[in-house]
Amino acid sequence: MAAGDLDRVMHLLAKLPGLGPRSARRGVLHLMQRRESLMLPLAEALAAAARSIRTCRTCGNFDTTDPCAICQDVRRDPGLICVVEDVGDVWALERAAAFKGRYHVIGGVLSALDGVGPEDLNIESLVARADTAEVTEVVLAMNATVDGQTTAHYIADRLAGAHVAVSRLAHGVPVGGELDYLDDGTLTQAMKARQSV
Amino acid sequence: MAAGDLDRVMHLLAKLPGLGPRSARRGVLHLMQRRESLMLPLAEALAAAARSIRTCRTCGNFDTTDPCAICQDVRRDPGLICVVEDVGDVWALERAAAFKGRYHVIGGVLSALDGVGPEDLNIESLVARADTAEVTEVVLAMNATVDGQTTAHYIADRLAGAHVAVSRLAHGVPVGGELDYLDDGTLTQAMKARQSV
Ligand SMILES: [Zn+2]
Ligand SMILES: [Zn+2]
Repeated sequence: MAAGDLDRVMHLLAKLPGLGPRSARRGVLHLMQRRESLMLPLAEALAAAARSIRTCRTCGNFDTTDPCAICQDVRRDPGLICVVEDVGDVWALERAAAFKGRYHVIGGVLSALDGVGPEDLNIESLVARADTAEVTEVVLAMNATVDGQTTAHYIADRLAGAHVAVSRLAHGVPVGGELDYLDDGTLTQAMKARQSV
Repeated sequence: MAAGDLDRVMHLLAKLPGLGPRSARRGVLHLMQRRESLMLPLAEALAAAARSIRTCRTCGNFDTTDPCAICQDVRRDPGLICVVEDVGDVWALERAAAFKGRYHVIGGVLSALDGVGPEDLNIESLVARADTAEVTEVVLAMNATVDGQTTAHYIADRLAGAHVAVSRLAHGVPVGGELDYLDDGTLTQAMKARQSV
């Protein structure tokens, strides 16, 4: 029943994870009551981010530059690559300051159910990176879910030919849990106690 | 840890009701993976709505015109005014097609706890509207919460001097429930069985 432009905002907001039609309506009302302080700034930030943010072709991270700041940071250990499912996991590990190497975002997990195979993930590029002389260790930091662990095993197998140590996060990560939920201390502990695969 | 523009999107999204920092991060990832199909369209729809949508000075509804389409619709009974807390309730009643009069959005409820007094709500303008010759009945459609019912009683008192019938939605509305949650049938029934106050 709302006017066209509001209907469109509602329809698009409802596509965000965790938001349904009702919470999208609430969101639109909230935004309309804060047109100058929230609605227009959000519109501008979305447009600016969509324009300015690239996907790093080396690691898959989001940044304004390609390669990203992490891939370009010479103070970070180029011998150490941490493999994660998505960019949110990079953010979680960076918030915890748990890791001083570089990342590789594979973009999901293997899933027979969802029809996600190895070719749908950034695994070939990881194998290529691991095969360079400077890389000495690959840390598998998938979520502790069934699909995450299946994916970690698959990647460990694929890396068997490369001359790198392969490790995974210590089982401080609760079984069934997702990285993004954990407090910084747990993530730091899990990283320190990482185990050879 | 995300780059500036993404941080800003996250920060602003987290201000929406029902979204916290974590779901805002998930939302940003979801948007970044759909830059063309979702992120830019949402940015444009937000900007367009913020520009085009006004608040009707007669009833408080949102529309591209002022007075709004409902206030201008000559097929709707000008003698009947339904008083609601916010525009979301107008949408709910319009979805249900439960009401063929016009609306008055008071913009909240009286609340001692939140320091909301009668002067913070659009009640004076309601009293003025109710005092015109064409208005014959005011339907109080506040939420069935304690604050909603307190507000309804306050408004009924304020309308005692106006020569209008004052009614409320029938108690088909579940106690403690909010209009926006109800199915169309319940709303229609509650409107049909509205009672004199
Ligand atoms: Zn990178
Ligand atoms: Zn109006």
